Amino acid sequence: MVKIAIFGVGTVGEAVVKILQENREIIKARAGKEIIPVIGVVKNLNKKRNIELELTDSSREALDRNDIDIVVELMGGIEEPLKIVRKALQLGKPVVTANKALLAYHRYELQDIAGDVAFEYEASVAGGIPIINALRDGLSANHIKSIKGILNGTSNYILTKMIKNGTDFKIALAEAQALGYAEADPTFDIGGFDAGHKLLILSSIAYGIDAKPEDILIEGIEGISSYDIAFAKEFGYSIKLLGIAKIVIDEVELRVHPVMIRDNEMIAKVDGVMNGISVVGDRVGETLYYGAGAGGDATASAVVANLIDIVRHNKKSPMLGFKHPLEVGKLKLKERGKIESKYYLRIPVIDKAGVLAEISRVFGDLDISIEALLQKNINSSSANILIATHQTRERNILRAISKIEALQPVLSRPYMMRIEK
Amino acid sequence: MVKIAIFGVGTVGEAVVKILQENREIIKARAGKEIIPVIGVVKNLNKKRNIELELTDSSREALDRNDIDIVVELMGGIEEPLKIVRKALQLGKPVVTANKALLAYHRYELQDIAGDVAFEYEASVAGGIPIINALRDGLSANHIKSIKGILNGTSNYILTKMIKNGTDFKIALAEAQALGYAEADPTFDIGGFDAGHKLLILSSIAYGIDAKPEDILIEGIEGISSYDIAFAKEFGYSIKLLGIAKIVIDEVELRVHPVMIRDNEMIAKVDGVMNGISVVGDRVGETLYYGAGAGGDATASAVVANLIDIVRHNKKSPMLGFKHPLEVGKLKLKERGKIESKYYLRIPVIDKAGVLAEISRVFGDLDISIEALLQKNINSSSANILIATHQTRERNILRAISKIEALQPVLSRPYMMRIEK
Repeated sequence: MVKIAIFGVGTVGEAVVKILQENREIIKARAGKEIIPVIGVVKNLNKKRNIELELTDSSREALDRNDIDIVVELMGGIEEPLKIVRKALQLGKPVVTANKALLAYHRYELQDIAGDVAFEYEASVAGGIPIINALRDGLSANHIKSIKGILNGTSNYILTKMIKNGTDFKIALAEAQALGYAEADPTFDIGGFDAGHKLLILSSIAYGIDAKPEDILIEGIEGISSYDIAFAKEFGYSIKLLGIAKIVIDEVELRVHPVMIRDNEMIAKVDGVMNGISVVGDRVGETLYYGAGAGGDATASAVVANLIDIVRHNKKSPMLGFKHPLEVGKLKLKERGKIESKYYLRIPVIDKAGVLAEISRVFGDLDISIEALLQKNINSSSANILIATHQTRERNILRAISKIEALQPVLSRPYMMRIEK
Repeated sequence: MVKIAIFGVGTVGEAVVKILQENREIIKARAGKEIIPVIGVVKNLNKKRNIELELTDSSREALDRNDIDIVVELMGGIEEPLKIVRKALQLGKPVVTANKALLAYHRYELQDIAGDVAFEYEASVAGGIPIINALRDGLSANHIKSIKGILNGTSNYILTKMIKNGTDFKIALAEAQALGYAEADPTFDIGGFDAGHKLLILSSIAYGIDAKPEDILIEGIEGISSYDIAFAKEFGYSIKLLGIAKIVIDEVELRVHPVMIRDNEMIAKVDGVMNGISVVGDRVGETLYYGAGAGGDATASAVVANLIDIVRHNKKSPMLGFKHPLEVGKLKLKERGKIESKYYLRIPVIDKAGVLAEISRVFGDLDISIEALLQKNINSSSANILIATHQTRERNILRAISKIEALQPVLSRPYMMRIEK
C-alpha cells in the first residue's frame, strides 16, 4: 500500500481523491499496489468538500508524517509550493505536481534537487493529454524539430467562436466567462501567459532550454478583429493561439502568439476548449496529441497516471527525460528579430488615392514582398488594408510597422499576426 | 553500454540501426547508456544493405551470444519469431518487437513467459505514434470506455481519395500500389485484417481481452461504391475504416469495418496514409493520437523508444500494463448479433412503382426505423435506394438484408455499412 498526501484540495485535488477511490481496483492492477490518499492540506478547514479525506491546515504536519510515500502538490501559486516540493524531494519523497507556474520558473532547480527521486508533472501541460509522456518516452529516439501547441482552452474557445460563428471577440470572451472557461480577469489565459508557461515546460524536455516566461515572445489574442477573421477565411486560414518551439540550426525559437495557419493542417482542426499539440520528430515525422486541456477530472487523470507510474517502477527516469544534460545550455534561444515568418498586417487608413502606393513603397524599401492583399471599407472615409507577406525576418516587419504607422494616411499602428506554415 | 541483436534487417531494421547510430548522442543522454546494435540476423547474407552491421544467418548464433542485452525482433511471420522471442525471454533477455501478427495470436503466452522481463511492442500498432505508451501509462488512471482507430494507412489513403477526389475504389487502390502504400496483394490491408491485429493488441491493454483475429468481426473496404460516397457527403459523413473496441456494461465489442462518421469528429479529420486513434477514458474524456502509422523511420522511432525505456528502468512495468490480471477474462466479447448501431444500406433495385413500399415493409416488420433515404438512378431501368436507419441491433439489420435480398425487384444483396456516432 502506498500512501499519499495532497497539498491543495480544490477541484483537481478532489478529483484525484475520487479517482483513487472509485477506480481503486483498476489502479491497483496497473500499479501493482493500492494507492491511498491519507491526508489533504488545505487553507480553510471549514470549507465543505465533496470527499472523504482527513484534512489539516498545516503543511509541516503533513510533510513530517513518516507514513507518507508520495507528495501531490496542487496548490497553485509559486513560493509556498516551491518550499513544499523542495522539502519533499530533499526528504527523498517522490512528488507529483500540476503546477505549471512553479515549473516555468524552477524546473531546473527542482530537477537538481530531485536527482533520482521521481518528480512528475504530466498534468502541468495540456491537462489529461499525456504529452509529457509522449515527448519524454514515446518520442525519445527523435531529435524534436518543432512543437506547436494549442495549449490554452480559453483562447481556443474564443477563437473558434470568432471563426466559426463570426462572434465578436468581446462577446466570445463573455460567453467563455459565462461557461466557466474564462476567469473574471482573463489576462493570464488570453494574454498567452498560461500557454507560455506550458511551452517552457515542453521545450525543456525537448531541448533542455532554461528560459523563464520573461525571456520569450508572448502575445495574446486581444487584438484580433473581424477584419482579420475575414482575411483568414478568404485565404483558407484558421486562427489559433500557438505555443511554438522550433529548432533552427543551433538556436531554438520559443514564442506564443496568434497565428494564421492553413485550415487543412491537423492542428488547425483542434476547436473549442480542446488542446492539441503537434510534435515533429526527425524520424517519426509529425505526431499530434489531442484532448481536454483543463477540468478537474482530466487534470486528475494525469496526476493519477503519474502516481501509478511512480509506484510501478522502483526507480524513475529523470524529470526532464535526460540524465546527462547533453542539450542543456547548448542550444541558445533565438533573438526575436531573427525569427522568420510570413506576416499578416491590418492597416487602418484614410481611404484616398495614393495610400496603397505609400504603403507598398515601405515594403519595397525593406525587401518584403507581398503575397496577398485585400481592402475592406470601415466606413465611407476609412478602410483596412489587409496584407499577407512572403517570408521575412521579424526585425524587418517591425521596421515596416513603425514606418507605416508614421505615414500620414495611416490611422493607427498596424495590427500584426504571424502566418505559420 | 547496452548491446542489441536485431532479428530481421529489412526497412525497419535498417532504420533502427541508423537511428541508433545517427542519434547516438541524444539517445545516450536519454537512456543513460549507449545502445549499440552488434549483430543482425538475416535470411540472405548476400543482399546489399545500407548499414554497417555484422550479419549472420543463424538465429541460434545470435541468441547464444552472451554479450547481447536486448533482442529486437523485426522478422515478420509468426512461427519463427515466436520461437526466437520465447527463447530470448526464457533467457531473461528483454525483447522489443514490431510484430503485430505475433502479438495478435500469442500476446498472453508471451506475457506469461516474460514475467518481470521487459517485453515491449510500441511499433506493433500505428507505427511511430506512442499509443501503447499512452494507453498503458498516460491513461492508466482511467477505465477505457472506447478505442476507435484508423489503424491502416493503406485503407485510409484509398478512402480519402474516394471521398475528397471522387476517385473510384479500383483506381485509388492502383494509385496506392504505385506509391508503395499498398502491396501487390492488398487483401491484408484493405480487408481489415491488419487493423484487426492492431485492435486486438490495444484491447488487451485496455480490457485484458484474450481474443484472436478469427474471433472478431472484420470487414474491409472493398465493397464501397461511389453511391455510398455520395450518400455520405449528402448527410455530412466521412467514411473511415475503424477498429473499434467499446465497453458496453460487462461486454466488449471488438470490430473492424468501414463506418460513416460525422465529418466534424476529430477522427474523421485523419486523412491520407496517416493513422489516428481516439481513446475515451472515464476521467479524461476523449484523447486522440495522430501520426504516421507505417514507414521504416516512424516504425523504428517506436522500436528505439522502447529500447531507451528498457535501458532507463531497471525493472519494467508488465507487458500489458497490469501485473494482476484483474480484468482478464472478466469482460466478455460481445456477440455480433447484439451489437447496436445505426446502419446504412445500399439496395440495387429495378426502378418500378411499389419497390420502396416493399422495402419499407421489411424495416417496419423488424421495428427498424428509417432516418434518411435517397434514391439514385443507375440507368433508365434500375436505381440504388440508399437508406440510413436509426439505432438497431445488428441481428435485426442482418435479417432485414436477407429479407430485402429475397424481394423480387431487388437486384443483388444490399451493401451495408455501420454509421458510428
